[in-house]
Amino acid sequence: MNPEEVIAGVRAGTRRAIGRAISMAESLGPDGRAVMAALHPVTGRAMRIGITGSPGAGKSTLAAALVRHLRHIGMTVAIVSVDPTSPFTHGAVLGDRIRLVDHFLDDGVFIRSMATRGHLGGLSEATGDAVEILDAAGYDVVIIETVGSGQNEIEVQALAETVVLVLIPGSGDAIQAIKAGVMEIPDVIVINKADRPGADILAGEIETALSLVPSDAWRPPVLMTQAIDGSGIAEMWEGIESHRAALAEGDALADRRRDGMRRRLRALAMERMAREMDARIDEAALDSLVTRVVAREIDPSAAADTMTAHDRPREKA
Amino acid sequence: MNPEEVIAGVRAGTRRAIGRAISMAESLGPDGRAVMAALHPVTGRAMRIGITGSPGAGKSTLAAALVRHLRHIGMTVAIVSVDPTSPFTHGAVLGDRIRLVDHFLDDGVFIRSMATRGHLGGLSEATGDAVEILDAAGYDVVIIETVGSGQNEIEVQALAETVVLVLIPGSGDAIQAIKAGVMEIPDVIVINKADRPGADILAGEIETALSLVPSDAWRPPVLMTQAIDGSGIAEMWEGIESHRAALAEGDALADRRRDGMRRRLRALAMERMAREMDARIDEAALDSLVTRVVAREIDPSAAADTMTAHDRPREKA
Repeated sequence: MNPEEVIAGVRAGTRRAIGRAISMAESLGPDGRAVMAALHPVTGRAMRIGITGSPGAGKSTLAAALVRHLRHIGMTVAIVSVDPTSPFTHGAVLGDRIRLVDHFLDDGVFIRSMATRGHLGGLSEATGDAVEILDAAGYDVVIIETVGSGQNEIEVQALAETVVLVLIPGSGDAIQAIKAGVMEIPDVIVINKADRPGADILAGEIETALSLVPSDAWRPPVLMTQAIDGSGIAEMWEGIESHRAALAEGDALADRRRDGMRRRLRALAMERMAREMDARIDEAALDSLVTRVVAREIDPSAAADTMTAHDRPREKA
Repeated sequence: MNPEEVIAGVRAGTRRAIGRAISMAESLGPDGRAVMAALHPVTGRAMRIGITGSPGAGKSTLAAALVRHLRHIGMTVAIVSVDPTSPFTHGAVLGDRIRLVDHFLDDGVFIRSMATRGHLGGLSEATGDAVEILDAAGYDVVIIETVGSGQNEIEVQALAETVVLVLIPGSGDAIQAIKAGVMEIPDVIVINKADRPGADILAGEIETALSLVPSDAWRPPVLMTQAIDGSGIAEMWEGIESHRAALAEGDALADRRRDGMRRRLRALAMERMAREMDARIDEAALDSLVTRVVAREIDPSAAADTMTAHDRPREKA
């Protein structure tokens, strides 16, 4: 398939073309660029929802339960997983009760996990592109599943209009992170595996943390789910919809999208600079710098200066 | 304190000078550079141990238990925590049984948590510097505590000679990550909270994952601990020491240090380039690009091109 066929196929919602478009975007080459440029004008229609939380919180099971709910109410949905430990990444079915394999023949569901290529791998670039492709393909909802830490956390805030943080009883670390100001306040908070002991304690900790939210700002609803049997999923969707409704008042949705695009452009520019830098590193020169640093002739900072010097804008003569 | 006083103080092992040196390094300015250049020649003596694992695995409690053990056998020890959810970061004491406050007046123990400043904040740079400062100050062991995901995971492999991965029963995600090839194989594996159900199942999963280890390579010991009451801590230390002994055969330790320094220099160079790029972004120009992308006049990739264009090496005229 050439780029033109891929573009036409995505716009027609053809699964094979969608998969091909995402692969083209992942390879970061000119075909991917051409596809993205052609599709960008027809994006902006899908609801973009982030589902974030530590490994083991049950994000994938929750996403699968949400897919079932959305299909039940007649909406089409795509999942982009950027969690290398997600069962989606491993092509696994999700236990006995919620089996995404049920949806493999359903054209209203598309699931894609993004390859991980380390911290220079253009993951944000490719993930953002995948979301745009699925939006252009006409899915009503695009779910982005990520582990909510470090760069990924920034990424999901940039890509999603509503971010759902998934917690489980006995693991209040995300709440610590919110209180410490290193994690942004999510839009919806879900306590999954809510039948486990400690759910009420966690809810109390969340309320304390949320006391930091200014009174005129959106206050995230705190909801209890058991993704494995679908309990609380309809309520979670209502929570997402009420956040969406709040965004739709005044300019909030447009502001959110502008803010997300601003973050995304910044991340894209950084990623490209870092990739170019990485590609230009002379391995033999690096090796001799390592030798000198290990021999304690120069310190690491001076060595790094040598590596970056030729990339700096030249001083005036 | 001026840089000269700080340098002399660190070499004399003065707590206040050590703290000041780390702050200088964190601020990424010329004083920090001068201090690091002067201290680098006297580094290389400390054992550098990484303790990594998901939030909630008990890394901090395990580190605290290890501190007690090391003090008991007459070794001095410093901890550098780069986990924003670590109790060290919040100045917390660690429950009733293991109280690091016991060590606050003990000159043989130094604890420092590194500030988090987002993904451009020079965290690897400052963390590497802190480890060198503590090494120069004469601590026998420097422990680096990090959440083992994404960039942090690369960082700990670059800074530590022995990496301990902490897992807990019921959370096999790190093992999935190792099997998927996205996490490097650690040097020592600890199943903490080993009294919980599922410890044996987890041990079995680890054995399966370790079947990927080539037969001539170091095979990580799998140890059971209960950090909260100190069970298994002496055995964990023995595991770390046997890895160290294996490294000491032939050129392995030197190779490991070279490899770590190579990763560190690469990360330093990237971080600096990204910071320079970030500092040069014209917010007004970015804002107008955002407007054009949101209006769908141009796509995000083209916008990013505009942002990075002036930083590229010029084409020949």
